[in-house]
Amino acid sequence: MTFELDAHIAVRSQGGGEYAADLDTGWVVGGGVNGGYLLALIGNALRESFPSKPDPLAVSAYYLSAATPGPATVSVDVRREGGSVGTASAELRQGEETRIAALATYGDLDRLGDDVGTTAEEPDLPPPDECVANTFAPREILELAPMMGRFDMRFHPDHVGWAVGQPSGRGEIAAWFRLVDGREPDPVSLLMVVDALPPVTFDLGLMGWAPTLELTAHVRAKPAPGWLKVRHATRNLAGGMFEEDCEVWDSEGHLVAQSRQLALLPRPVDTPGVIL
Amino acid sequence: MTFELDAHIAVRSQGGGEYAADLDTGWVVGGGVNGGYLLALIGNALRESFPSKPDPLAVSAYYLSAATPGPATVSVDVRREGGSVGTASAELRQGEETRIAALATYGDLDRLGDDVGTTAEEPDLPPPDECVANTFAPREILELAPMMGRFDMRFHPDHVGWAVGQPSGRGEIAAWFRLVDGREPDPVSLLMVVDALPPVTFDLGLMGWAPTLELTAHVRAKPAPGWLKVRHATRNLAGGMFEEDCEVWDSEGHLVAQSRQLALLPRPVDTPGVIL
Repeated sequence: MTFELDAHIAVRSQGGGEYAADLDTGWVVGGGVNGGYLLALIGNALRESFPSKPDPLAVSAYYLSAATPGPATVSVDVRREGGSVGTASAELRQGEETRIAALATYGDLDRLGDDVGTTAEEPDLPPPDECVANTFAPREILELAPMMGRFDMRFHPDHVGWAVGQPSGRGEIAAWFRLVDGREPDPVSLLMVVDALPPVTFDLGLMGWAPTLELTAHVRAKPAPGWLKVRHATRNLAGGMFEEDCEVWDSEGHLVAQSRQLALLPRPVDTPGVIL
Repeated sequence: MTFELDAHIAVRSQGGGEYAADLDTGWVVGGGVNGGYLLALIGNALRESFPSKPDPLAVSAYYLSAATPGPATVSVDVRREGGSVGTASAELRQGEETRIAALATYGDLDRLGDDVGTTAEEPDLPPPDECVANTFAPREILELAPMMGRFDMRFHPDHVGWAVGQPSGRGEIAAWFRLVDGREPDPVSLLMVVDALPPVTFDLGLMGWAPTLELTAHVRAKPAPGWLKVRHATRNLAGGMFEEDCEVWDSEGHLVAQSRQLALLPRPVDTPGVIL
């Protein structure tokens, strides 16, 4: 059985660092294709480019234009490869348009030390059954964001006030997360997970799509199978932009990924219902 | 009068997006040239490449090899330029060796909205006169890190236990910061400021140089003249790496820059005194 994420991020080597891909329509959200999905697809091409270094350690993506479902090309240019890490630039293009320019460092998480020292704390989430499932989202949201159909998300009940017009104003959204078809998390899929939740600005009452300018993800450990806990938070809105910090914790309580993105504040919504 | 930072980050256009530069010996720290200084130099070349977009909004740098004082070249390739923001890739090279591969988005901070909503809190620092000045550092440190001579830093007294063998273990270092010759901060100099303090791992008792793999900085507002407050913190050490988050606040209490870097944990020190 091929899980749908693996089918959707599949790339076909064309030689010379070029990979052909098809952006699946199942990841549309708002006016484009989800940035986390695109990041995982680029991450998959990078993994093929570094046979002995299968894991993303750091990936930075600059989003230049909105992608659309259909054919795309990923170009990978390895800039330096050493014994333990390799670094490459990558671009995702559709026709003449560059969608994403990226840089990434890959390595082998199994070969890194197993020392861990963490003062970060896991999101405090009630059990999944006591959280609010994304399947309860209004039908108009699910139609605008087919991506939601890929996920089983269970939101902290205190973090979904925005769904009923009562955002908390704290700037925080945390949820349990897994893929609907049982595909377990791995380092490349975490690149998608860090951009899967609704924008944290929902919790500030700013409904609308928040275009990402830049997103950097660090994968810090291989995730254990099972539910992930994902937490989005923002601490600073200024100049029409906000940062969104994401943490992903695995079922064994390890912080497996961290990311930060700089995004544009949603514009005031003039089309009712267009809120992703 | 030309301030020394401006002289040291000066670039000379060679046409075709190539800029010649000289890496000044005054920014040596440990075995290489400080990464923040190099980022500001690249940032200066990028500023010249975007005449109507003078300010870095987001810059991501991947450090491929250690730079040495002397001639260097910055190549800038504008990937997309729109009405309000432009994005470019940039590389810093010395001879055949790429030192840094970077991506950056530039804009004009004066043209952005003046909305601010911040839940982040300023570092709580005693007045500069009640803090510990970097001039009190042991002579052997100052000799190993000529860079320290560029700065007037005043450390929170609770964050310098590492200097006397008593690190706090919290993973936090905060200090007042300004340049010794009175050069006021601006968006490009903030790219240097975010990597100017000693590694936060000092506060965990891990003395030694911590090579940066990747650093992303977001400049969120133009800094007001005067002292800056700079805070480094880490929340997660794993697999031989740690993230270092930096916040820079200006004299008017605005959060003007945020950065995160992924760095390698210092190796055990075998040369006494080699701790930067």
